[in-house]
Amino acid sequence: MSSNLGITSRETNYSEWYNELVLKADLADYSAVRGCMVIKPHGYALWELMQRALDDMFKETGHVNAYFPLFIPRSFLEKEAEHVDGFAKECAVVTHHRLKKNPNGPGLIPDPEAKLEEELIVRPTSETVIWNTYTKWIQSYRDLPLLINQWANVVRWEMRTRLFLRTAEFLWQEGHTAHETYEEAEAEALTILNECYVKFAEEWMAVPVVRGLKSKNETFPGADHTYCIEALTQDLRFIQAGTSHHLGQNFAKAFGTQFVDRDNTLKYVYATSWGVSTRLVGTLIMAHSDDKGLVCPPKLAPIQVVIVPMGRDEETRTRTFGASDQLAAELKAKGIRVKVDKREKESPGFKYNYWELRGVPVRVEVGPRDLDAGALMVSRRDSGEKVSLPVAEVVDRCVALMTEIQQAIWDKALAFREASTRRVDTWEEFEAAFAAEGGAGVIMAHWDGTAETEQAIADKTKATIRCIPLTPLDPSDVEPGVCILTGKPSKQRVVFGKAY
Amino acid sequence: MSSNLGITSRETNYSEWYNELVLKADLADYSAVRGCMVIKPHGYALWELMQRALDDMFKETGHVNAYFPLFIPRSFLEKEAEHVDGFAKECAVVTHHRLKKNPNGPGLIPDPEAKLEEELIVRPTSETVIWNTYTKWIQSYRDLPLLINQWANVVRWEMRTRLFLRTAEFLWQEGHTAHETYEEAEAEALTILNECYVKFAEEWMAVPVVRGLKSKNETFPGADHTYCIEALTQDLRFIQAGTSHHLGQNFAKAFGTQFVDRDNTLKYVYATSWGVSTRLVGTLIMAHSDDKGLVCPPKLAPIQVVIVPMGRDEETRTRTFGASDQLAAELKAKGIRVKVDKREKESPGFKYNYWELRGVPVRVEVGPRDLDAGALMVSRRDSGEKVSLPVAEVVDRCVALMTEIQQAIWDKALAFREASTRRVDTWEEFEAAFAAEGGAGVIMAHWDGTAETEQAIADKTKATIRCIPLTPLDPSDVEPGVCILTGKPSKQRVVFGKAY
Repeated sequence: MSSNLGITSRETNYSEWYNELVLKADLADYSAVRGCMVIKPHGYALWELMQRALDDMFKETGHVNAYFPLFIPRSFLEKEAEHVDGFAKECAVVTHHRLKKNPNGPGLIPDPEAKLEEELIVRPTSETVIWNTYTKWIQSYRDLPLLINQWANVVRWEMRTRLFLRTAEFLWQEGHTAHETYEEAEAEALTILNECYVKFAEEWMAVPVVRGLKSKNETFPGADHTYCIEALTQDLRFIQAGTSHHLGQNFAKAFGTQFVDRDNTLKYVYATSWGVSTRLVGTLIMAHSDDKGLVCPPKLAPIQVVIVPMGRDEETRTRTFGASDQLAAELKAKGIRVKVDKREKESPGFKYNYWELRGVPVRVEVGPRDLDAGALMVSRRDSGEKVSLPVAEVVDRCVALMTEIQQAIWDKALAFREASTRRVDTWEEFEAAFAAEGGAGVIMAHWDGTAETEQAIADKTKATIRCIPLTPLDPSDVEPGVCILTGKPSKQRVVFGKAY
Repeated sequence: MSSNLGITSRETNYSEWYNELVLKADLADYSAVRGCMVIKPHGYALWELMQRALDDMFKETGHVNAYFPLFIPRSFLEKEAEHVDGFAKECAVVTHHRLKKNPNGPGLIPDPEAKLEEELIVRPTSETVIWNTYTKWIQSYRDLPLLINQWANVVRWEMRTRLFLRTAEFLWQEGHTAHETYEEAEAEALTILNECYVKFAEEWMAVPVVRGLKSKNETFPGADHTYCIEALTQDLRFIQAGTSHHLGQNFAKAFGTQFVDRDNTLKYVYATSWGVSTRLVGTLIMAHSDDKGLVCPPKLAPIQVVIVPMGRDEETRTRTFGASDQLAAELKAKGIRVKVDKREKESPGFKYNYWELRGVPVRVEVGPRDLDAGALMVSRRDSGEKVSLPVAEVVDRCVALMTEIQQAIWDKALAFREASTRRVDTWEEFEAAFAAEGGAGVIMAHWDGTAETEQAIADKTKATIRCIPLTPLDPSDVEPGVCILTGKPSKQRVVFGKAY
């Protein structure tokens, strides 16, 4: 059975490694519905922990949750010109509200008499349906700011999908806020970026991210400008892990959202929107995991400590199960999420592999000889390190390991990103960096700031501008230079890379 | 402004009272999408508290969460004959995956080249897509039981909608479990009914419910039998507040879900499914609220104590705001959800009405003279009772009031249901009970057990069998008798009523 737990190594085939890990670690499964995934209980537990942490951050920064309709009338989508261009090409369109018996064969067909007068789009994002509502809610400056978030499912008809990273349906949160002034909206977009998204990625996921501004080509359809966080994967590609948009007055103008300001004049509202999704689960997997399976930072691990009691006979098991339950109760009292694996038909070796695959940060083995000796073996998932500890020290050590492992995973990911970052100054070097099949790491290079050059670079190399960093990765990044392709002047280096 | 907070009284127009309460207490709003509601922040906060309590109960009884696709292929819906009959007539049908520019006019149309080969149905409930997946997951008795819940949105194309009680899209949880035997599935369906749904309704919502079995006419399409909880409203109607279905082997047979049992033979799995929805919010409103607005049991109140500081000048406000903040901090430390209403442009009277409308269980007034006297006025939302208490006693009194008000609301609702329950033995009396426009209360009567009689009764009176109680409301309910319509023998009284 043990071989069944094995997964392809990253070196052999990174893409296969990822897919097998997701499936075998019980994180997600393919569904019969094109492009839609099933999030399995272990993966969903991870997502629930992410939700809880993010939701707390949103509430601490003054936001409340609400819920808006799943469906968007076609005419709403059409109101903001860039927005409709961005989403109309890949959306699920509801045209009928009833099925009827097929008069010409077996099964059911959409009932022609139940055709909708106006088609409904399954929300790819909710700006339009929300701004239609906000127009009703906002009359005066006293109704502002409006700081609302929703947790929801959205659908974008992607042709090439990948579990967690790009699926037709995904789960996310989308914040939609309304403000009196441009400056307040700007402050909001940056608060979310810095105090929620960067903080969550770094302190909870232990994933270092570059925070920056998107180029015009990559700005959200309908936004004035877009901020993002970008994470590096072990195959040296980027994942856009979250975005925060300053929408200017675009949606307010499209939906006629005006308010009477303090000076008694009628003005259009300024807006932001921002979101992170189940893509974060894919980001976390790609950032830390190894050839044994998932490596999960303790703060987000659904099970933080697994206890494996041994014993081939009933009497021994009574003893090791009892000791394990007691240890579990003590750990639980310290706030640790713990599981005792009492399955009798599986060998200890199988269980070790099983829980390593699923990313449990710490394992404690409880065998009869360990109990005789008064010492238990404690193993770390991240480093593989094993130490034998006196029984009385195990609980405190497990508690301490939560912090230590969280830090170690972060240190490793940060060191990896730093080692994968290069400053490139010539076109030859740049082309060479992106010539290989795989990812290229973080390529810091000068760019003349035009969409044409960005496009030309992408056409030649598949490299895209991941972002214009808000804070330089290195002081030299903000020294002026010349564009690697055109030789025109540039004020700062931007991040080039290959994206998932 | 105060008049703006007023709502129609229950006596004047119960239906208007409910709608106005929902809108003005900021619980929900109509949306531009037919039959879909917007759940506003205050209503969503209530739903979040409901979710948290229910989710804890599901987890305590051994369930885990997961997430399955929003879309159901048409052919899946067709696999279980009763199921498709139940849901095909009111569903949202996705037929295209792209919009394109209308070649014959303005705007967009579904792109004929992006027509789906097989239509997708927006899930009205997820049995079919889940059982398609379970067939892959279940091979052996060792894979059982499978105890999974999901929190999701579902769509049923209802023609007549009402905020929270019946909407085209609603939020719910749906549990889907798989078992080795009929008996285990039966135990599961009853565990959910008794240990989760009844317990939640009674201990959290303070709503007494009748637990019972549905008649065949009202059984879930595809189920062997359906259990339910039924709540009484103040206009003497019933709301079906939750259902738990024993599905037998119907879905396992439709989807070929077989497992190798302990005796090494291949068997079909037994199943249950069960759900409660945002309808619970409507149930709670209808059970307790009054002509001033929402009355919310403290355990589910998003804000449990509101503090209203007074003061017409800056100096006074500094003093009352300071005292209010301190009181709020002390209450928060005791686990109370508290809000200080510091709005300066609204009068105290406006604020009292405002928070009464929104159902905050306790109000504390902090005026300068109160502080001088060392005593604060504490008011109960449920009874309107006001007492002046020494400042030092306010925190403990607020904590105690949480339990007292929860109990008082329950007592009142239970007394109301008991006063609204009648045992009826003749057809004349029965007809008279249902002759009025409004609800009829809980009518306990004998029935011969046939679907024909049930239908005949409904045709003549609009009364339906809400359930066959699992535990008699009164010992006499299980004495034999004769059917009120046909005079045929009956073993027990069943609950007749008018349903929402």
